[in-house]
Amino acid sequence: MSGPSALALPHVARLHAYTPGLQPTESGWVKLNTNECPYAPSPQVTEALHRDIGEDGAALRLYPNPKSDPLRAVIAKMHGLPRESVMVGNGSDDVLNLIVRAFCDDAAAAGFTVPSYSLYPVLVEIQNGRSVAVEFDRSMQLPIERVAASTARAFILTSPNAPTGVGFTNAQLELILQRFRGLLVIDEAYAPFAEENAVSLVARYPNAMVVRTLSKAYALAGIRVGYALAHPEVIDVLDRVRDSYNVSRLSQTAAIAALSDPAYYATVVAKIKATRDASIHDFERRGWFTYRSQANFIFTEPRNARGESGPAVAKAAYDYLYSHRVLVRYFPSHALTASFLRISVGTDDEMLVLHDTLDAWQKS
Amino acid sequence: MSGPSALALPHVARLHAYTPGLQPTESGWVKLNTNECPYAPSPQVTEALHRDIGEDGAALRLYPNPKSDPLRAVIAKMHGLPRESVMVGNGSDDVLNLIVRAFCDDAAAAGFTVPSYSLYPVLVEIQNGRSVAVEFDRSMQLPIERVAASTARAFILTSPNAPTGVGFTNAQLELILQRFRGLLVIDEAYAPFAEENAVSLVARYPNAMVVRTLSKAYALAGIRVGYALAHPEVIDVLDRVRDSYNVSRLSQTAAIAALSDPAYYATVVAKIKATRDASIHDFERRGWFTYRSQANFIFTEPRNARGESGPAVAKAAYDYLYSHRVLVRYFPSHALTASFLRISVGTDDEMLVLHDTLDAWQKS
Repeated sequence: MSGPSALALPHVARLHAYTPGLQPTESGWVKLNTNECPYAPSPQVTEALHRDIGEDGAALRLYPNPKSDPLRAVIAKMHGLPRESVMVGNGSDDVLNLIVRAFCDDAAAAGFTVPSYSLYPVLVEIQNGRSVAVEFDRSMQLPIERVAASTARAFILTSPNAPTGVGFTNAQLELILQRFRGLLVIDEAYAPFAEENAVSLVARYPNAMVVRTLSKAYALAGIRVGYALAHPEVIDVLDRVRDSYNVSRLSQTAAIAALSDPAYYATVVAKIKATRDASIHDFERRGWFTYRSQANFIFTEPRNARGESGPAVAKAAYDYLYSHRVLVRYFPSHALTASFLRISVGTDDEMLVLHDTLDAWQKS
Repeated sequence: MSGPSALALPHVARLHAYTPGLQPTESGWVKLNTNECPYAPSPQVTEALHRDIGEDGAALRLYPNPKSDPLRAVIAKMHGLPRESVMVGNGSDDVLNLIVRAFCDDAAAAGFTVPSYSLYPVLVEIQNGRSVAVEFDRSMQLPIERVAASTARAFILTSPNAPTGVGFTNAQLELILQRFRGLLVIDEAYAPFAEENAVSLVARYPNAMVVRTLSKAYALAGIRVGYALAHPEVIDVLDRVRDSYNVSRLSQTAAIAALSDPAYYATVVAKIKATRDASIHDFERRGWFTYRSQANFIFTEPRNARGESGPAVAKAAYDYLYSHRVLVRYFPSHALTASFLRISVGTDDEMLVLHDTLDAWQKS
């Protein structure tokens, strides 16, 4: 026979996997490429984990709570929603995957804006589904009419958007929800850094879903926990396609501890926002066009010493930073992103290294 | 509009989720229902976890290695296979789900035997795929001809089988592999307790895949790690449909530590096999028909005081055990399983409680 990959479904054999940001294994990098939190998680997280593991790790021999029920209860209480409105995933990527799997196929399209999180089209390809892409213009303002009028069965909207950081208001989202016939999935990975969030819309619109992650504001990218807030009927649909033990015992423990320490995270988030706004100010002082980010990253258009911008300049800045072990993200594949760098907000010290390295690049 | 679940794909709205075994949250149960290991994981696991979490849990803020590369390397070395022959999943359920997703649909059938792990048909339903079911007879011997001649694109065979514990030999599996045109997925969740395993077939047959889990012999059901061994082309296919960060950082750490302590687990497995064989002997002394298990569970056909067996008797035994807080598994939905109980092998003390409770039931 030909190679065994010939047994795979044709669309799977054709598809290209999502490319995550680099995760260097050696130390010495200023890592500003995957929007992780620069600060450690709440001390309650480590305490709860050490306690759960204990002397002999005996609890690990048992399966975790299949539905992550205690964690769902904590999330429900935090957001003032019934428990039946909450589902927990192995990272929000798991949640997004299940949404596409349950709602979209070659007849029922999945919608998303372009640019946004580049995982969405990959999830639709895996499903061999149909996509509806709504293009932004350079203003990066929400194309309300086109989203509302789209024929998507489920439309995934990142808010604040990635990679721009531009936030959308609930008033804008409501204009969509009042007219859109499908499920509006508001991917709020970065909402803790924003001025507003859409959780209140979940109780009011049966076709509104909010997706959250503990990877960004909660400093827990390593444990893979995300969740969905939606009408109980929608949650029930997701639970049917969910792996029965999709979230590890230690991840459930860590997430419960994190969500139980809002005071710690309020301080962390305030610090990141202050660093972000100061850094945006620095970019603007350089004369670099920079979106007003409501996330924990900054999308800025580098200019070289001659004042030029564009894809080649962005690439040069990226390469210079990389060669000096400062890791940021660069998205050359779309005209609206190819002239920009996406820079995660690190500590003040890390942002100092970033700006010093960019100074050196501009002089080089 | 009607309820928002009307937006779900029709086959998803219809399907029934897999029902995992009960995971009681209160203590006091003798838990012999989900084939967990009755002993704690290797001390190296707890040590590695405590070290990785550290004082402040700072490592948790970073994404895990997306492909679990260091863990793949350990697995490859352990099995004497190239790294490109290994994929790691969020439990073996994740691996099985990805296999169905990448190889099966409404035209390319997924095959499995009946009875076997009841998750398989659920995974095919989620995929809206076609199933080919090959029925066992009461001997529970492998129907080699029917599997080899099946038109399945991927055939999932549990070996040792569940819920019987009957093991299949490599000679039998080779008879299938020499003729079967699809991918033969040998789900070896229980292979560490068996007389033989099929890993050597992976290097010799490009259409052979072995799936393993750390949930049973490695006492790590709580951390959700399983893996696939297959031809690099097949692994590449699975990686395309895999979530990019599907295994948490702590789960990768725990798995590496566990697989690095074979001496500990050799002792644990030997102990479980000794307990199993002694308990099978006890069931046989009662005159209960019991399959010769090569797994960490026992499938036995209870007889009441009047010497009767059958579904009602099995149900009565299950209920009596349950009311005395001994939890086992009972599968009433198939003629070949409805007269039996599946009992995980616990500690010697737990098996003593089990047998004492069954004595009391027989006298009641």
